Amino acid sequence: MNYDELALQLHEQYKGKITTKLRDESELDKTKLSAYYTPGVAAISSAIANDETLLPKYTWTNNLVAVISDGSAVLGLGDIGPKGSMPVMEGKALLFKHFADIDSVPIVLNAHTADEIIAAVKAIAPSFGAINLEDIAAPKCFEVEERLKSELDIPVFHDDQHGTAVVVLAGLINAMKVVGKELSQTKIVTIGAGAAGTAIMKLLHTYGVGSIVAVDSKGIIGDSRTDLNDEKKALLQYLDTSLSGSLDDAIVDADVFIGVSKPGLLTQAMVKKMAQKPVVFALSNPTPEIMPDEAMAAGVAVLATGRSDFPNQVNNAIAFPGIFRGALDNSVSKITDDHKIAAAEVIASLVDEPTAEEIVPNVFNAKLVPAIAEVIR
Amino acid sequence: MNYDELALQLHEQYKGKITTKLRDESELDKTKLSAYYTPGVAAISSAIANDETLLPKYTWTNNLVAVISDGSAVLGLGDIGPKGSMPVMEGKALLFKHFADIDSVPIVLNAHTADEIIAAVKAIAPSFGAINLEDIAAPKCFEVEERLKSELDIPVFHDDQHGTAVVVLAGLINAMKVVGKELSQTKIVTIGAGAAGTAIMKLLHTYGVGSIVAVDSKGIIGDSRTDLNDEKKALLQYLDTSLSGSLDDAIVDADVFIGVSKPGLLTQAMVKKMAQKPVVFALSNPTPEIMPDEAMAAGVAVLATGRSDFPNQVNNAIAFPGIFRGALDNSVSKITDDHKIAAAEVIASLVDEPTAEEIVPNVFNAKLVPAIAEVIR
Repeated sequence: MNYDELALQLHEQYKGKITTKLRDESELDKTKLSAYYTPGVAAISSAIANDETLLPKYTWTNNLVAVISDGSAVLGLGDIGPKGSMPVMEGKALLFKHFADIDSVPIVLNAHTADEIIAAVKAIAPSFGAINLEDIAAPKCFEVEERLKSELDIPVFHDDQHGTAVVVLAGLINAMKVVGKELSQTKIVTIGAGAAGTAIMKLLHTYGVGSIVAVDSKGIIGDSRTDLNDEKKALLQYLDTSLSGSLDDAIVDADVFIGVSKPGLLTQAMVKKMAQKPVVFALSNPTPEIMPDEAMAAGVAVLATGRSDFPNQVNNAIAFPGIFRGALDNSVSKITDDHKIAAAEVIASLVDEPTAEEIVPNVFNAKLVPAIAEVIR
Repeated sequence: MNYDELALQLHEQYKGKITTKLRDESELDKTKLSAYYTPGVAAISSAIANDETLLPKYTWTNNLVAVISDGSAVLGLGDIGPKGSMPVMEGKALLFKHFADIDSVPIVLNAHTADEIIAAVKAIAPSFGAINLEDIAAPKCFEVEERLKSELDIPVFHDDQHGTAVVVLAGLINAMKVVGKELSQTKIVTIGAGAAGTAIMKLLHTYGVGSIVAVDSKGIIGDSRTDLNDEKKALLQYLDTSLSGSLDDAIVDADVFIGVSKPGLLTQAMVKKMAQKPVVFALSNPTPEIMPDEAMAAGVAVLATGRSDFPNQVNNAIAFPGIFRGALDNSVSKITDDHKIAAAEVIASLVDEPTAEEIVPNVFNAKLVPAIAEVIR
């Protein structure tokens, strides 16, 4: 199905996706107005000025996430700028509300460098309970997130990195059950070393997979490469760096392929070189690294994509609503690797009997948000 | 009545004042999700990236005002910082929603200098349809507003300045009817040359009042003063600058007193030196420059305060909801002096028969917002 027409119709009809309303829906008379605004509100402001930890007790920040982007890496569209990115960020705010009852405000930034983005986010941070960074291009997204995490006292989470990594790990845990292998002894090949690919490699390494061979647009990321930037050099510690060559070399005997790169990069011939019962996560969106029919014909045992029209959709919306719900409810100020692993395990556990057609829960599964929130503490 | 207790109770019960909801309240199924978010949303983002004027057609920015403060001049509390100011800004968002059905987001800034505030607001500006600056200390508020007005393509309105000035002008227009004087021949004395005082002087001058003598904490702002900063020097063009001395000197034969300063500065003895049928706007809040009973006993003909528990409340909420409603609906990118004067005149006109007890409409008057919005175009 082509969703463009429906998207245009709905966005024009409703003129956007979110709106505000008053928490107190009873009649707002003169007395209440004098309590919610001047003069009564001065007592609340004074209380918070004297003890800033009271901010979430008395203001909407207790349930509020900013979805922040500079519009530099939006979906498959690339660097389309802040205004172009607004519909996606407002869409994320819609997901936050719908799945986790979290108030969320899209903030699109007329800022370009990491320093400019960091300065803007630090300036507005007192307004929010948590920050979801979104669609910021690699490699600047890494510096932006790292510095904001260390300099702010509220959770900062780049969902393109960590949300994706959490759902990939959850899916892999269940895929290994389906094919009867141990993740700790599995050879994994990844292609794509942007925001998502980098976070996936780090989280899988931390979780303790067998080995990871990473491929980028120049080939295998290994010791023999002389063209690696600082971000990619920093990845070497997580990887099997002994190989060189292309994806075609890396894929031999691989148990798992994870693609977060470009359409069509995985061929049927490559699949046939993988170990028995190959697992393929072809997450390039909307067109995967290998189309599902080709993958299955070549002998893939478990296939996941980023699409909703095939089984096993690796969708960030499985993870981020519950992660933020937990962070806000449990006053968690940093989302750690332990949190991400716990979230992945609980997501995996919500599939009672994993099969080739069902390794991750459906995004509409009502147990997801409370179960994940429970482990983010 | 002391509103503190009710304020604490309501803020704790509701944990804040505003929340978000989805515009489309019908069931959000998988198909709709694919139109509101990926993959369908890409069509909307592409359309806006190609033509940024489509932003308000497809996103909530068409109805969205940021209420922005650095918390440097909050109510009577002074410089209490961004977090302390949040309850007031969230209260303003509540007023926007309640009175004008405008979506509004409070943004409190960890920024101190004019340059820092300007940089932060410019960075986030693509996220909003209009900007309401609030509770930023003078004199930096003047530079912040002027530069943002000239550098952004959406309306920027410092409500402490212009909202107050509009309602004061509206009240004065009707007060003159009550006392049978012409505003063009009226001698006005102001005390307080902060954000509100400055804007009042400018707007009254532009409207064409007889003369204005301004007093600050050092005395009459006139030619003989050698201690004036740049902002106050810039005011001289609007003032009768021939006098020197204190408020006690300025007040002699004044038709109108406008105080936006400190409690108790206007004495009964001073009122008795004013021209016949004196008009007093004692707007210091919550404690006026002269208490109403003292003012009336000293012979004041028309008294206005900033309080809701006396007649003639000069309340910004009479003006700003309609001004922003009009700016958003009519795609007005700059709010000009002509707009402010038109707003003041339409506000004044909504009082059918002005009396000493009723020179401005009640803030709950349902005609206010549509009538004002109609003239902001």
